[in-house]
Amino acid sequence: MNTVTENIQLEFDMFAEAERLFSELEATSTSTIGITREAYGAGEQKAIEVFEAYALKYDLETSFDGAGNLVIVLPGIDRNAPCIACGSHLDSVPQGGNFDGAAGIVAGIISLARMRHESFAPACDLKVMAFRCEESAWFGKPYIGSCALLGKLSQDDLEARQRDGKETLAEAMERCGADLDRILAAESLVDPKSIAAYLEMHIEQGPVMIARDLPTAVVTGIRGAIRHRKITCLGRAGHSGAVPRWLRQDAFFATAELISALDEHWRVLLERGLDIVVTSGIVKTNAAVHAMTRIPDEITFSLEIRSQSTDALEAFYHLMETECNNIAKERKVSFQFDRKLYTAPARMNERWIERLKDISERLSMTSELIPSGAGHDAAVFANAGIPTAMIFIRNENGSHNPEESMEIEDFIKGTEILYHAFKEPL
Amino acid sequence: MNTVTENIQLEFDMFAEAERLFSELEATSTSTIGITREAYGAGEQKAIEVFEAYALKYDLETSFDGAGNLVIVLPGIDRNAPCIACGSHLDSVPQGGNFDGAAGIVAGIISLARMRHESFAPACDLKVMAFRCEESAWFGKPYIGSCALLGKLSQDDLEARQRDGKETLAEAMERCGADLDRILAAESLVDPKSIAAYLEMHIEQGPVMIARDLPTAVVTGIRGAIRHRKITCLGRAGHSGAVPRWLRQDAFFATAELISALDEHWRVLLERGLDIVVTSGIVKTNAAVHAMTRIPDEITFSLEIRSQSTDALEAFYHLMETECNNIAKERKVSFQFDRKLYTAPARMNERWIERLKDISERLSMTSELIPSGAGHDAAVFANAGIPTAMIFIRNENGSHNPEESMEIEDFIKGTEILYHAFKEPL
Repeated sequence: MNTVTENIQLEFDMFAEAERLFSELEATSTSTIGITREAYGAGEQKAIEVFEAYALKYDLETSFDGAGNLVIVLPGIDRNAPCIACGSHLDSVPQGGNFDGAAGIVAGIISLARMRHESFAPACDLKVMAFRCEESAWFGKPYIGSCALLGKLSQDDLEARQRDGKETLAEAMERCGADLDRILAAESLVDPKSIAAYLEMHIEQGPVMIARDLPTAVVTGIRGAIRHRKITCLGRAGHSGAVPRWLRQDAFFATAELISALDEHWRVLLERGLDIVVTSGIVKTNAAVHAMTRIPDEITFSLEIRSQSTDALEAFYHLMETECNNIAKERKVSFQFDRKLYTAPARMNERWIERLKDISERLSMTSELIPSGAGHDAAVFANAGIPTAMIFIRNENGSHNPEESMEIEDFIKGTEILYHAFKEPL
Repeated sequence: MNTVTENIQLEFDMFAEAERLFSELEATSTSTIGITREAYGAGEQKAIEVFEAYALKYDLETSFDGAGNLVIVLPGIDRNAPCIACGSHLDSVPQGGNFDGAAGIVAGIISLARMRHESFAPACDLKVMAFRCEESAWFGKPYIGSCALLGKLSQDDLEARQRDGKETLAEAMERCGADLDRILAAESLVDPKSIAAYLEMHIEQGPVMIARDLPTAVVTGIRGAIRHRKITCLGRAGHSGAVPRWLRQDAFFATAELISALDEHWRVLLERGLDIVVTSGIVKTNAAVHAMTRIPDEITFSLEIRSQSTDALEAFYHLMETECNNIAKERKVSFQFDRKLYTAPARMNERWIERLKDISERLSMTSELIPSGAGHDAAVFANAGIPTAMIFIRNENGSHNPEESMEIEDFIKGTEILYHAFKEPL
């Protein structure tokens, strides 16, 4: 039996399968610089077609859930038993990389294909869930595909517009076949009890595993976030040459003071051992009126605070509000905030963490534990009470940029862990 | 004689003429918010047509100089004698006001119309020069129409692109009938000796005259400027959740630190009595790639420093360079500068300052002296060695914004001064 399995394994070339799939995925990009797969757009749709075709080739079942996410199934012996699922997301940020999201889907689908190739029949259904719209770059909120599936979208979320301003999330989802009535009712489109576990393999999006020389790692938890997609600082316009400093209400100088103050708070809190990262990724004056010789009366910027600790998130947010109030008073400007988006930090399941460590060690792979700085669909499953775990793959140059770079050797190591986690009953 | 003149003056209703002209000018705007007269574009062209029609009505000569600026002449008895000119600019900033620039042209043309109406024949030609493209909002550099006339444009200036990126200055000027060969050769299209004086009436663009209750004032000098239309701060992109503070190369946090540092230097230098204003009117992350969850690797911003003192300009610029170097080293970012645009401070002619003061006092008007924070075409004439002077009109809410607001009563007072300065031989 062992010999037979090993022979079959030799025939299923995971390396070649992965390279082919990643190369097909690269061709789905709609940008020439980096990879762009727009959520509910052309890039994401093409990626779905790549995965559907691959699943078909290996006689796996394909369908779409009520939120328009692709689901690929290797049927189990008992089709009514709770399934084991793995998944990740189809979309990328604009001009991002090929692996952020897609790697987890490729790992899952190759694992199922390999079992099919080996004629392995699992005890329960094994599913790959390929989610739409995980990246907040598109509609401001992250994990939209998984949130829709688990009944976690609000009316406000559904009214958010795509970054090009054209379509609301509700319109985009409806166009892609989602069951809007049930999503609007915040109904879970799947019974959480029908999922015994949700596993997600993902590239690490920070520099830790490169620095510590870890091809794979097991994730302990996922940072939560407080976000504002758009904060507007309003001052007063004026001729740049003719208004003295004391009469100015300069929206950019006010915003620069805010960012510098937040940077200093951040530095101090890190010294006290708090887990925090702060980012303002989008900033702009009003292009319809701005000019080199016009004191800017309006600047808009995004703000994101992430932490593994809910307390640290709230404390930093409070500091930010205090700074805004002080600066507004001092500089005679005002700060207006759009909706506060909150994503709770998530803990991974202890039993599954141990299991993934055990499998890693049995396969003679590294089994270190690291936290996830980035958010993932896994956080939505964990916070819905579904036992959830993650495997990280080493990745150079971070993600959300075209230089994102994962070695296929590392990917295969992670996929081996996922394959065994899938195959061996808990 | 006196009685006759006064009768005729009663018949020429400057107030009604001004209101009609300003209302026709308001209709030239190409924007619904505020007034937009694009340089070398539709708004400017329509303003030219308004002034041409008005000149025709009063039998004034109209022509275009070699730079495409409109020139309106009341012929003098000795047509070979050096003329007295007044002027200002046709264009506005995007979504600016109706008076910035246009008021000076209206004042000049109404003065000539009134003399024609009075059958007054001046000793020398009296000219109104209506300049194109004074606002740097369009091609980055200010005073382009007057610079072109006086041979002060460089090859680099002519290669600058309009703010929409489509057309170069050379292309725009050629389209509007300018003699590009002579302008490229930096040839003065007019003999400076043929202009005995250049006068310019303009709204004040700062809050000083409102604060000091001065309907009109005489200008002592004009602030010069050092400008960069675009400074680029380059860092490194990364996932907002996954890169710790010490590994970040955040272009926005670096730029915020720079602006905050410049604000502090500015505050300190003002306490030491230096004349300085600092503005960054345009700032933006790269819209093609920016996202709330992406550490920004690129931010661009404009920077402008103005002062009546060349030394203060250079000193502040040096401080800015030093800060950029320190921040670049500390945060592992780089700052890239486009062409440094320099506009020299300008002094007004002492004899003309006294003359305008005398006329003001004779007309029982205020005759206070104030400096000009904003730049004007007058600076180009002054720095070309032509005796130059300016009259300021009180104006509420500053300029370069739609709330710019001048009382017609104040405008008439300034126009009376201009009329007498024009009419009475020096």
